[in-house]
Amino acid sequence: MSRFSVTYRLRAADRAEALARAEGIALEQTVEIPRAVVPAGYVADEILGRVEDLSPLGPDLWQAMISYSPDSAGAELTQLLNVVFGNSSIQQGIRVTGIDLGDIVAARHPGPRFGIEGLRRLTGATGGMIAPVLKPMGLPPEDFARLAAGCVRGGADIVKEDHGLAGQPTAPFRARVEAVARAVSEENARSGRRALFFPNLSGRPEEIEDNLRFAKEAGAGGILVMPGLFGFGLVERIARDSALDLPVMTHPAFLGPYVLAPDTGFDHGVLFGTIQRLAGADISVFPNVGGRFGFTVAECAQIATACRSADGPGLPMLPSPGGGMSVERAADMQAMYGKDVVFLLGGSLLKDPSRIDMAVAAMRNALDKAQTGG
Amino acid sequence: MSRFSVTYRLRAADRAEALARAEGIALEQTVEIPRAVVPAGYVADEILGRVEDLSPLGPDLWQAMISYSPDSAGAELTQLLNVVFGNSSIQQGIRVTGIDLGDIVAARHPGPRFGIEGLRRLTGATGGMIAPVLKPMGLPPEDFARLAAGCVRGGADIVKEDHGLAGQPTAPFRARVEAVARAVSEENARSGRRALFFPNLSGRPEEIEDNLRFAKEAGAGGILVMPGLFGFGLVERIARDSALDLPVMTHPAFLGPYVLAPDTGFDHGVLFGTIQRLAGADISVFPNVGGRFGFTVAECAQIATACRSADGPGLPMLPSPGGGMSVERAADMQAMYGKDVVFLLGGSLLKDPSRIDMAVAAMRNALDKAQTGG
Repeated sequence: MSRFSVTYRLRAADRAEALARAEGIALEQTVEIPRAVVPAGYVADEILGRVEDLSPLGPDLWQAMISYSPDSAGAELTQLLNVVFGNSSIQQGIRVTGIDLGDIVAARHPGPRFGIEGLRRLTGATGGMIAPVLKPMGLPPEDFARLAAGCVRGGADIVKEDHGLAGQPTAPFRARVEAVARAVSEENARSGRRALFFPNLSGRPEEIEDNLRFAKEAGAGGILVMPGLFGFGLVERIARDSALDLPVMTHPAFLGPYVLAPDTGFDHGVLFGTIQRLAGADISVFPNVGGRFGFTVAECAQIATACRSADGPGLPMLPSPGGGMSVERAADMQAMYGKDVVFLLGGSLLKDPSRIDMAVAAMRNALDKAQTGG
Repeated sequence: MSRFSVTYRLRAADRAEALARAEGIALEQTVEIPRAVVPAGYVADEILGRVEDLSPLGPDLWQAMISYSPDSAGAELTQLLNVVFGNSSIQQGIRVTGIDLGDIVAARHPGPRFGIEGLRRLTGATGGMIAPVLKPMGLPPEDFARLAAGCVRGGADIVKEDHGLAGQPTAPFRARVEAVARAVSEENARSGRRALFFPNLSGRPEEIEDNLRFAKEAGAGGILVMPGLFGFGLVERIARDSALDLPVMTHPAFLGPYVLAPDTGFDHGVLFGTIQRLAGADISVFPNVGGRFGFTVAECAQIATACRSADGPGLPMLPSPGGGMSVERAADMQAMYGKDVVFLLGGSLLKDPSRIDMAVAAMRNALDKAQTGG
């Protein structure tokens, strides 16, 4: 029986307290009753979490590895995440620093459908990719369509909607997706390119299935999802769908508090790498160093490593740093992230919306030069 | 035009920095582009967030009130939450301390279907309610059914599943819900009680609709949901469903990081009161003072106030403190929360599972005595 295990960083004054906390987590995340009343047999022997290792990390900091039964999680990703961190997320001084799925859970959650190689096959891109973002909210569909066509002309690999485009009255989901998908498709045909359009999935829960089918039929080349608002289960639902057969890009909206405080939540690489990949995302968007969000070089590097490591979960996926990108910084960013990356390009493209193609092309050229060492 | 507004607590060294941060949020949460390139007209005049007020709170702390257009959120709760805190959740030193919906957004999100009065009508309870929890995971359906029957005999108002009961192989959702609903119904008939059974909603996204219908047909009297894992949209989807017509209880699993660090996330009352109510929850579970989670008296009181205040959103709902309840503490807890409350009763009931009825009855009696001043 292959158990899965989670590594937690705990705040505790000494080994005895750290062990008590670790044993508390093992109970809390599974049976949620005091140890003395855990039923003997299967529940105590198999279901109950087990503290497998406890080691000091520094002053008042300990690392505990706890293993769990695949039976405790069952087949659902939401329940797996619930066992990893459901109730313990509400206790001070517990941070998830690693997840090791083991064979059984890994088989249940195969991860990205496309991964890095799949995205290269779809786009034809051989180096770092660029994904300009359609915004701002409040524009009509035809304006987004015009911007999208310019992005394709300029050499975008992916044309992504802003995560804030939802059901605004000026550009409802269907009218917008239809107009932009058509513009991208026409511009692809005209220019011989293969840019993929990623609309931002929105809708009430009971509309999501129809909206996914609509996007596919309209010609979307992928789907942008916010797991912080819609749940990670939705990412996996899309990744598993062989009829839909579209890559998924995840956006970090609403997820900030899971990483911002060092004593709770998840390490950056776990949240924006491991868990996104486990859920089946092919591309994980996160705030880039040097942008508006204050992530450090080390945090961004940890995310990129977790996205691309050969150890899984599932296929390697593309990290997608957002913000902080410019023609001037292209060479530095290229050096930092290497070629397996999707750079988001945002507001800086919109200085003159009618010439967005030139702005995208300038970035494309700067990046290509950096890649060839030119 | 009635805009909705959000109050943020900001970390900033002086008024100039605080104003710059507030104006940054107003951009980030709507157009997400630099101010200089915001299109004139509708986007700049209506869609762009507006800093309405900025006042000092203490050393390096400021309060900013920012108003947003109902058009920026559209009809979807997920997008409303995205405008409230999507990207700003990823920036250090920003905490949401209040949400004022305004008329237009309030009309779009009517909130709880039942509220406090509705729950009293369904259960017949006139004072504080008790909700014993069925656990641990790993038991077969017939054991949960036996425990549930005992809880009803003992005088439970609500019999709630543990939030960790999902698709475990020993008790899959449907077999478990069917067995427990039958036991609760039979015991209600025998004893003339009206206890409500709240199964824990689980399933992959594409199974949720069927699982909801199944629970209703099996005889569930309400639904337990974890919005931290399934999204707040699902809470609203259930609350709006007049055919389903079931009260919703929300569980805080996976939501901890939104409240634990004082400089990010949401104030306790906003997350476990305002937002749950906005989504349509009738009962909001949160960790009680004196339990395993370290919430303070002030934090719990803030939650209870936000759940029950006459100002909305929607109908007043029931706060449901979990943990820290015992026969000995019943009078104190009653004094702290008053009568509009649902006390969760957990592992302490399971010292002798075959006599859970006696344990529930002891709590029922202690609480009834406290309520009548006996």
